[in-house]
Order: sequence, then C-alpha cells, then structure tokens
Amino acid sequence: MLNSLLNHRSVRKFQKKEIDNEILNEILHCGIRASTTGNMQVYSMIVTKSQEIKKHLWESHFKQNMVLEAPVHITFCADFNRFNKWCVQRDASPGYNNFLSFFTAAIDALLVAQNVCIAAEAKNIGICYLGTATYNADKIISTLNIPKLVVPVAAIVLGYSNDNSVLTDRLPIDAVVHNETYSDYNPDKINQIYNPKENLDLYKKLISENQKDNLAQIFTDLRYTKKDNLFFSKKFLDTLEKQGFMNHDE
Amino acid sequence: MLNSLLNHRSVRKFQKKEIDNEILNEILHCGIRASTTGNMQVYSMIVTKSQEIKKHLWESHFKQNMVLEAPVHITFCADFNRFNKWCVQRDASPGYNNFLSFFTAAIDALLVAQNVCIAAEAKNIGICYLGTATYNADKIISTLNIPKLVVPVAAIVLGYSNDNSVLTDRLPIDAVVHNETYSDYNPDKINQIYNPKENLDLYKKLISENQKDNLAQIFTDLRYTKKDNLFFSKKFLDTLEKQGFMNHDE
Repeated sequence: MLNSLLNHRSVRKFQKKEIDNEILNEILHCGIRASTTGNMQVYSMIVTKSQEIKKHLWESHFKQNMVLEAPVHITFCADFNRFNKWCVQRDASPGYNNFLSFFTAAIDALLVAQNVCIAAEAKNIGICYLGTATYNADKIISTLNIPKLVVPVAAIVLGYSNDNSVLTDRLPIDAVVHNETYSDYNPDKINQIYNPKENLDLYKKLISENQKDNLAQIFTDLRYTKKDNLFFSKKFLDTLEKQGFMNHDE
Repeated sequence: MLNSLLNHRSVRKFQKKEIDNEILNEILHCGIRASTTGNMQVYSMIVTKSQEIKKHLWESHFKQNMVLEAPVHITFCADFNRFNKWCVQRDASPGYNNFLSFFTAAIDALLVAQNVCIAAEAKNIGICYLGTATYNADKIISTLNIPKLVVPVAAIVLGYSNDNSVLTDRLPIDAVVHNETYSDYNPDKINQIYNPKENLDLYKKLISENQKDNLAQIFTDLRYTKKDNLFFSKKFLDTLEKQGFMNHDE
C-alpha cells in the first residue's frame, strides 16, 4: 500500500484502451469512503467519456491533449446543491450559500479525488490532475450543465499508461514538515532546501532553453505569472459569486 | 489496498500509545509523494505532539477531547511563504498573494493530507479530520506562529484506536456520480437517495432526542447553522486577507 503511494507519478500519455465499467465503479466506490464533513457528502463526481464533451473540456484545460487521449475524465465538484434541495424539501432552512460552505465542500471533493486517484493507481490505471479546473471553472460549468451551489475544484484524466514517466523530484522532507510549531525559513535554509533541485540537469536545461537566470524565474515569468494569477483569481471569485457561494448578509 | 480505502472509519478515541518516529516519518513521506501543482509543493505539515501546544489547539477545535488524547496532531497548511521567499531570494518576481494561489496551495495541502491519512491507516493507525481547522484558522495561526502566505486548511489527529467505530453510512453511489454531464436532482430523486439514510435507527433516535421533525433539520438547526456559517465565513475570508492572499490589484 505504502509502495503504491510512494511510487505515484502523473501519467500524461495513454494507451487506446478503455477502462472496464466494473473497475471504474470499484474506484469510484473508494472515493465515497473518504472522510466527509459531518457525513454530508457535499461533493459530486462527473465522469465524462464522450469524445464530443471531452473536446469542450479540452478547451477549458488549455488544450492539453491528455484530455482527448485518456478514456475517462472526472470533474470533482464542491456540491451543496443536492444537500440544499434535500433541506428545502424537508422544511429545513439551509444556510449554505457562503464561502465557508463552499470551502467545506471543496475539502470533501478533494479528499474524494485523492481516494479515487489512489484506488486507480492500485488498479494499475494512471492519473493526472488538471490544475486548470479552477482556472476555467466557469467554462466547465457551462460544458457540464453544472447548477448553482456547485463548483468544479479538481479534474483528473484516467487511463492505462503509455508514458515513461519517472518519479518527480521533491524537496527534502524537512522543507515541508515543521515540528510542534511553524519554523520560518531564513536565507540559508532556503538555499539548503532548494539547491539540490536547482542543480538537477532537468532544470538546468530548462533554464538555458528559456534563457532565464534560474529556476524560480521559470515559475514567476513563464509558468505561474502574477498577471495570469490575478486574472484567474478574479474569474474564480466571480464564479463562486455566480454559483451562489458569496452571500454574507443575514 | 482498495480494502483499506473501503474500510476507512474515523477514530475519535485513542490508546495511550505513542507513534514511533520512524513510522510517522514513513507516513509523512507518503504525503509528499501526492500530486502537487507544477511540482511547487506549496504546503506545509505542522506535526504537534506537545501537550501544552495541543491544549491551545484543543481550544481552537471546539474543545474536542481527541485533540488532547491522540498522540499526534497534524495541521496541513496552504503555504506560499517558502516558495515566495525562494523567488525573492533568486531575483524572481512572485505573484502569489491572491486567491487563486491560495486555492492552488489548499488543493496541494489537502491531497497531501489524504495521502497521510491513507498511509496511517495502512499502518494500523487511526485518524480523524477536524473540520474546525478552517473555522478557527486565525487562532491556529497564532498558536503555531504561522507567517503570512500560510493558512491552515485541514487538521487531523492520529493514534492507535481505542474506538469501536463502525463503517458510516453513505448515500448510494448514483447520488454523487454523474454520467457525462451533471444531472440535476428532482424531488423524487432526492427522496430516493435520502430515504434509506433517513430510515436508519441511528438518525431516528437522534431526531427524537433533539425534538426535530427530520434529519435535515438536525443539520440546519443544530450542526451547521446559517448563523455559524456566516460568522465563520467572514472570519475565514478575513484570515485569507490578513495572511496576504487577497491582493487583486495590479
């Protein structure tokens, strides 16, 4: 079990081989056993296989080809719609159209997503998260007919690997684990934890190809720029508002 | 592996038995193998064992005794502080003080959290999530000396079980899985998916003890009330602002 967790690698190239429905159902069942706040299960999983619908999702996911090539795409949503409808139908007065409820539902959805990924990998099926789910949540909402009080927070592709992906580098564990309380980072510590990464040939090549001074600039200037972050921040906050999660007056 | 996922149950009572450091490290190592956006690893895990610090955390977690009784408490944080410091130190211009970056980091932290939980359970160690981490993120920030660009998004307790916890009920799988696109719920469907839950003796007893008409009212009137949600929503949004994640002007 631990070996499977320790050997996770994202798969971005897939064989042209479907996932058996029975296996997919087993995997989804592992999803719903994840911890959920107050056992409310305020999430939904949208399983998309149709090539036509995937073409729209592909647009939302910055045209990453794995969306078209993988046999299965799952969108994980923070979902208070179902719970809210149940409350209204039972003469109970729901108050879940706020940010805390959105975030609670997002946690639910993300724990389910990770269970699904781990179950898939245990079944020898490769997965890759698409970070773009929040960037273009508004477009995904429109493609998948997602109603109010539901917001996509993660998406994955699944399929049998045709990828020679290797284990990705990680920072040393003491870079991300703090004992008792948070130990803030001084310049020496920053150097100590990032130097091994910065010295990898993989990144040295990337820096030279992109004519940058160092790896940090690859992130700030190319991959995750301030301009993009601001644009997608506003769009995502607007989406939360439109989906009904930002009502904070009595 | 799937069996372990399928048999998850939250553990709230613990034996007075420490977790061996080597085992805990193995579990934390499984955490850092989780998928992370752009391999940025924008999360931190704060491992607290000190009874004195746990007493403060216990206050933040609505005085749930499992915080004092479990040998280990882990706070999972969305963390752009480390990455931001690295960028500044390398003459790169970070733009991560916005909501999208917070949410990206929160996803990272939650996937790590779920990996840690699954690894712990594979080692026969019980876990329970504390939903209160977001409710009182501000107090936890103060207790654990958490700096700007870091926000707690989940917390768990870990230890050897002394609990007779049973498998919790779940909605039928077709309640939370949608095929191709989102299928909204009509009143019949709501009845169909919630009736089995509503008919469980466990909940019938709860309804009668609390003199409510039905299970939905247990949630809306007692457990997750509109008033509390609004209060904690504002507080959590204030915390995001104070931690530096809500700067949306150029």
